[in-house]
Amino acid sequence: MIPGDNYPSKALRDAVEAISSLPGVGSRSALRLALHLLKQPADKIHRFAAAVDNLAEGVHYCKTCMMVADGDQCDICADARRDHDTICVVESVRDVMSIEATGQYHGVYHVLGGIISPINGVGPSDLTIKQLVDRVTAGTEVILALSGDVEGETTAFYIYRQIEGSGCRVTTLARGLGFGDELEYADSLTLGRSILNRQTFKP
Amino acid sequence: MIPGDNYPSKALRDAVEAISSLPGVGSRSALRLALHLLKQPADKIHRFAAAVDNLAEGVHYCKTCMMVADGDQCDICADARRDHDTICVVESVRDVMSIEATGQYHGVYHVLGGIISPINGVGPSDLTIKQLVDRVTAGTEVILALSGDVEGETTAFYIYRQIEGSGCRVTTLARGLGFGDELEYADSLTLGRSILNRQTFKP
Repeated sequence: MIPGDNYPSKALRDAVEAISSLPGVGSRSALRLALHLLKQPADKIHRFAAAVDNLAEGVHYCKTCMMVADGDQCDICADARRDHDTICVVESVRDVMSIEATGQYHGVYHVLGGIISPINGVGPSDLTIKQLVDRVTAGTEVILALSGDVEGETTAFYIYRQIEGSGCRVTTLARGLGFGDELEYADSLTLGRSILNRQTFKP
Repeated sequence: MIPGDNYPSKALRDAVEAISSLPGVGSRSALRLALHLLKQPADKIHRFAAAVDNLAEGVHYCKTCMMVADGDQCDICADARRDHDTICVVESVRDVMSIEATGQYHGVYHVLGGIISPINGVGPSDLTIKQLVDRVTAGTEVILALSGDVEGETTAFYIYRQIEGSGCRVTTLARGLGFGDELEYADSLTLGRSILNRQTFKP
């Protein structure tokens, strides 16, 4: 089916247009989702719309780490049991949630809000790098937990140059074979790094 | 990433829960979509929510054919140039849009609002079959444009039994090889029907 301009209702067309503006949702999927919503009771539609609407004003950002929060400070920065001298620098809110889900990290975060990418018009001033520099002292460990691609490496290098003067310790995520990966199928760059950064065997 | 209960903001969690209630949207996709919306300007979020909210009261159903409409009558039923003695019976609004997109049909429609499916608890009284029976007269052609599966065939047969007494003509969609289909890969049921219902060659 090709949903053209033959929408039978303006309200339906408006909803399909709104939904298809989401990334990865085409006009066919949007129509399917809109028709699904249409079949729901009115109060469920209102609740759905209200939950989305509330994203505009109901979400705040932590003034310290720029993480999404309910107020001026996120739960992680407010938690005195966490190590506030270890700052894990990530690209987005999703990365914080991924690392939190591992349960292995007990420091705090700094959300950059993006990655340096000239091709997408994102420069250092579009990110929260200045706020990070202000947080870093000689006693801080900064973990650069950025993607392993060119943009991630560029951003990591830029940040390193900005903070190296403070005397802080800068670390980065370990790269190597994933758990369960087979040697045979690993790419040579990853395998090479795994050999160079080999670790003491702990039985 | 496993998005557990570690959402950093209640508003974000509410939005993710609402979005992941859509069919085919898991919690990961919902988080991705919610974070995308969160990055948009507030007025764009409000417009998105309003367009969805309007589905609850802004969409009406045509009192004749049960099609989605802006008012009490859909554009197709209101169009005097269409053949009101030919009624194409379809399962859903989407089917109407698909057939309209072909540009080959000039009659009117009747939207059943579903298909008889005991396994899903959908019986004849859940559909708009009674309204269809009321529309049909001896001069009507009823085209049963339903899916070719068991549920579609069952529904078609049920409707046929309800309307056959009116003296109307009942037809169904032609089944056969699709345009561009290769004989070699056609299933035997379709190919068998294509041979039985062979048509005069029109060069």
